[in-house]
Amino acid sequence: MKIDINSDLGEGFGIYSAADDESILSLVSSANVACGYHAGDPVVMDRTVQLALKNNVDVGAHVGYPDRQGFGRRNMAFSPRELELMTLYQLGALTAVADAAGHRLTHANFHGALGNLSFVDADVADALLKAVRTFNRDLIFVALPNTEAEKAARIHGLNVVNSFLADRAYDERGLLVSRGKQGSIVKDPVKIRERIIRLLQDGTVVTVDGQEIKMSVQSILVHSDTPGAVQLGETIRSAVLEAGAEIVSLSRL
Amino acid sequence: MKIDINSDLGEGFGIYSAADDESILSLVSSANVACGYHAGDPVVMDRTVQLALKNNVDVGAHVGYPDRQGFGRRNMAFSPRELELMTLYQLGALTAVADAAGHRLTHANFHGALGNLSFVDADVADALLKAVRTFNRDLIFVALPNTEAEKAARIHGLNVVNSFLADRAYDERGLLVSRGKQGSIVKDPVKIRERIIRLLQDGTVVTVDGQEIKMSVQSILVHSDTPGAVQLGETIRSAVLEAGAEIVSLSRL
Amino acid sequence: MKIDINSDLGEGFGIYSAADDESILSLVSSANVACGYHAGDPVVMDRTVQLALKNNVDVGAHVGYPDRQGFGRRNMAFSPRELELMTLYQLGALTAVADAAGHRLTHANFHGALGNLSFVDADVADALLKAVRTFNRDLIFVALPNTEAEKAARIHGLNVVNSFLADRAYDERGLLVSRGKQGSIVKDPVKIRERIIRLLQDGTVVTVDGQEIKMSVQSILVHSDTPGAVQLGETIRSAVLEAGAEIVSLSRL
Amino acid sequence: MKIDINSDLGEGFGIYSAADDESILSLVSSANVACGYHAGDPVVMDRTVQLALKNNVDVGAHVGYPDRQGFGRRNMAFSPRELELMTLYQLGALTAVADAAGHRLTHANFHGALGNLSFVDADVADALLKAVRTFNRDLIFVALPNTEAEKAARIHGLNVVNSFLADRAYDERGLLVSRGKQGSIVKDPVKIRERIIRLLQDGTVVTVDGQEIKMSVQSILVHSDTPGAVQLGETIRSAVLEAGAEIVSLSRL
Repeated sequence: MKIDINSDLGEGFGIYSAADDESILSLVSSANVACGYHAGDPVVMDRTVQLALKNNVDVGAHVGYPDRQGFGRRNMAFSPRELELMTLYQLGALTAVADAAGHRLTHANFHGALGNLSFVDADVADALLKAVRTFNRDLIFVALPNTEAEKAARIHGLNVVNSFLADRAYDERGLLVSRGKQGSIVKDPVKIRERIIRLLQDGTVVTVDGQEIKMSVQSILVHSDTPGAVQLGETIRSAVLEAGAEIVSLSRL
Repeated sequence: MKIDINSDLGEGFGIYSAADDESILSLVSSANVACGYHAGDPVVMDRTVQLALKNNVDVGAHVGYPDRQGFGRRNMAFSPRELELMTLYQLGALTAVADAAGHRLTHANFHGALGNLSFVDADVADALLKAVRTFNRDLIFVALPNTEAEKAARIHGLNVVNSFLADRAYDERGLLVSRGKQGSIVKDPVKIRERIIRLLQDGTVVTVDGQEIKMSVQSILVHSDTPGAVQLGETIRSAVLEAGAEIVSLSRL
Repeated sequence: MKIDINSDLGEGFGIYSAADDESILSLVSSANVACGYHAGDPVVMDRTVQLALKNNVDVGAHVGYPDRQGFGRRNMAFSPRELELMTLYQLGALTAVADAAGHRLTHANFHGALGNLSFVDADVADALLKAVRTFNRDLIFVALPNTEAEKAARIHGLNVVNSFLADRAYDERGLLVSRGKQGSIVKDPVKIRERIIRLLQDGTVVTVDGQEIKMSVQSILVHSDTPGAVQLGETIRSAVLEAGAEIVSLSRL
Repeated sequence: MKIDINSDLGEGFGIYSAADDESILSLVSSANVACGYHAGDPVVMDRTVQLALKNNVDVGAHVGYPDRQGFGRRNMAFSPRELELMTLYQLGALTAVADAAGHRLTHANFHGALGNLSFVDADVADALLKAVRTFNRDLIFVALPNTEAEKAARIHGLNVVNSFLADRAYDERGLLVSRGKQGSIVKDPVKIRERIIRLLQDGTVVTVDGQEIKMSVQSILVHSDTPGAVQLGETIRSAVLEAGAEIVSLSRL
């Protein structure tokens, strides 16, 4: 059994940083790199890609809204066509920086409010994944299972890797429970460990309401910008190994 | 004799436009398209590329400073390495948009204050042209002759096309007379016409001081954001034809 | 009868302009000036205020979303508290520029998507008008009648001047018909003229469905960024005079 | 003897923070607050002002270049007039936020590359201090002694408080030694303590070359965005007290 561990990195901007990228890059196998819209700039992007290369970590594009002040977490109204073009822009920009660093882009996914919209809006999901496919049909799409974005990626013929959020609760449809809701965040490392082992060994998740549902994933996300991100990464890494899985980057799944 | 006519286009932003791109695209053979830094955004870039494709006009990247408020005309202090990364970013972004539109990037050059710096600063010129070469060694560099940027492009093994500014005076070194100086701008269409015909037929330019110097160019620039840009374009176009040249885009020179 | 004519001006940015401010300022009595968020920058703001002063035109703050690329017309999700702080920021910034130019701020209103939200969202309207009142309780609020923003302004004890959009259709509640809908825009200058004269002489508007409703306004808006804005301004101006009204700026109503 | 301790705070942006503002605000008596140009946004500005008020700390405007990516540390070419208008803009914006929070602006100074320019360029210094004076002639200017900015503030009739950088070396003219140069940064807390006690008790500073020069200051700066900023603040605070001075905010000097 092969499992990727991915994290959203390169989310700094100018002098600002959002996470301890260097430590997290020693724990994960794939990095979703901000492309200068919700976070990142050419210098930060290059630094992140170089660090990923040094750590033998895959890099992908983490595409977001053009909203640094809101870190791409604020809903903004764009047409699907605008979103398609913004996705192309970001994919091209990061690919150029990665290629020049001697690395290569292996995957893509969507950040924050744009990501959330892609879970539920089929037109937006179609536009975003069309952009990914048009740009480079070899890119892997890192998806949350059971979302419109996952469906659109499959319709567009992209390779899809489903990702699991070990520190977030799921509902009976296999979707994330919204952050605001009771029980949506799992903080206890013991529970996170149990969830991962259960998922990898039995293929099941216990929902927020105590039901057991089936889920199949090939990657697990380490949230990078929460306090204790490095510890979370260590917990996830050791749980994956304890479950008997080999940790490999997305492109080697 | 084959001559390209190029112009800086796609310099709008959001609701704003800087030039009558549609009219100018019917007169030129190559467009230098802003990449979202000093001007442009994904929607404007796409619209410009689509229009260029429809008009059978080559598209290239017009790379500038990240300064929309100053339109990239304000000096800003960046290290050569930062400029190299910003150039990669812009080249990648525009290429992605152009490829998706079914067009392709044929060339690159530098805008405004960044362009001016590249004329005189060898380190900056080296960093910028290194980025172009690294990104795509088939890109043509549209140069002003006798500048550090032209030298750096040749050192990096890029194809170079020299461009002539028919409405700007030159000094005895074959360099532009600074905008502020007496006689730097040539406004009279009759003189512009004469300068082009002399250049294409005799390979000479009369400097601001009345000397005749040799100059060899394969492209002529139409300034797009001046009043009368369309008339300037028409003047240049008919002068080129009158000189007996065939107008072809950069990639077909 | 005294009537103000207002227009949204100073909507340029850097080298870009959105309207023929100079011509429109010769036709109106009050200017709603962009404050550097959706449009405008300190230089544009100063130029607009200086021109207004020269034309004896009142200046007010036209407060918008921080979205130059979308010109403040794109919906963005902010909390009421964030909007309150952004309003304070913009009011302070423009007041400083106006005061230094020897002019003074007389009024405020809200632009684009933020304005539209303030028509229908009572919490947002309350936050925005609270910011205006906190900043300067002598500012006049230029309102569309029958909106949440108008209500909030009255609750906060601000002086309210209702404004009429002569080129936009109204429904039976006295609210604007959305732009997308059939008949929402009135283009015919003859009809615009008739609507103004009817409104000023009879206090009535004929709705998009042909009903006659009561409406009381003290100001009429000239849309500045549409083709034919200057002609629209001339039409409105002559219609107001023909209706027997005196044109005075907001602060002299 | 009364001494103020000041620090540059509110330098976060969106989710990003630049310093441990909360801890530093418990150590200083005056805060120079970023105004949304090089750093800060309305929410960050409000939070900083509220925290300052709670800690009984004066707030002033820390005015910078419109350059978040470069944190205002990058040289940018603006005319003195543009800088004057940008200063007015920032002063107005922060004042509005501070007033609404029940605090008030007591002072101003200039950040980063703009600050450095104001030390040596008399025209720029004149424009910047003219803006401060025009905006509010009661604002105190927090100056580095022996600079063009200090001179301009005195010419414009502003109250000037000279500030000392305890962790930076000075030359024989009483000016800061540039950061790049040997010995420009003083890191040893014991030396920092000695420098402060000597300055406050004897009115002298030992230059980077070992000469003793006279210097008169009423405030000491705590650099906020260096590692160990809180410890630096504690060192400065205890040294000031050990020198027998009373720590009071700028407006109570």
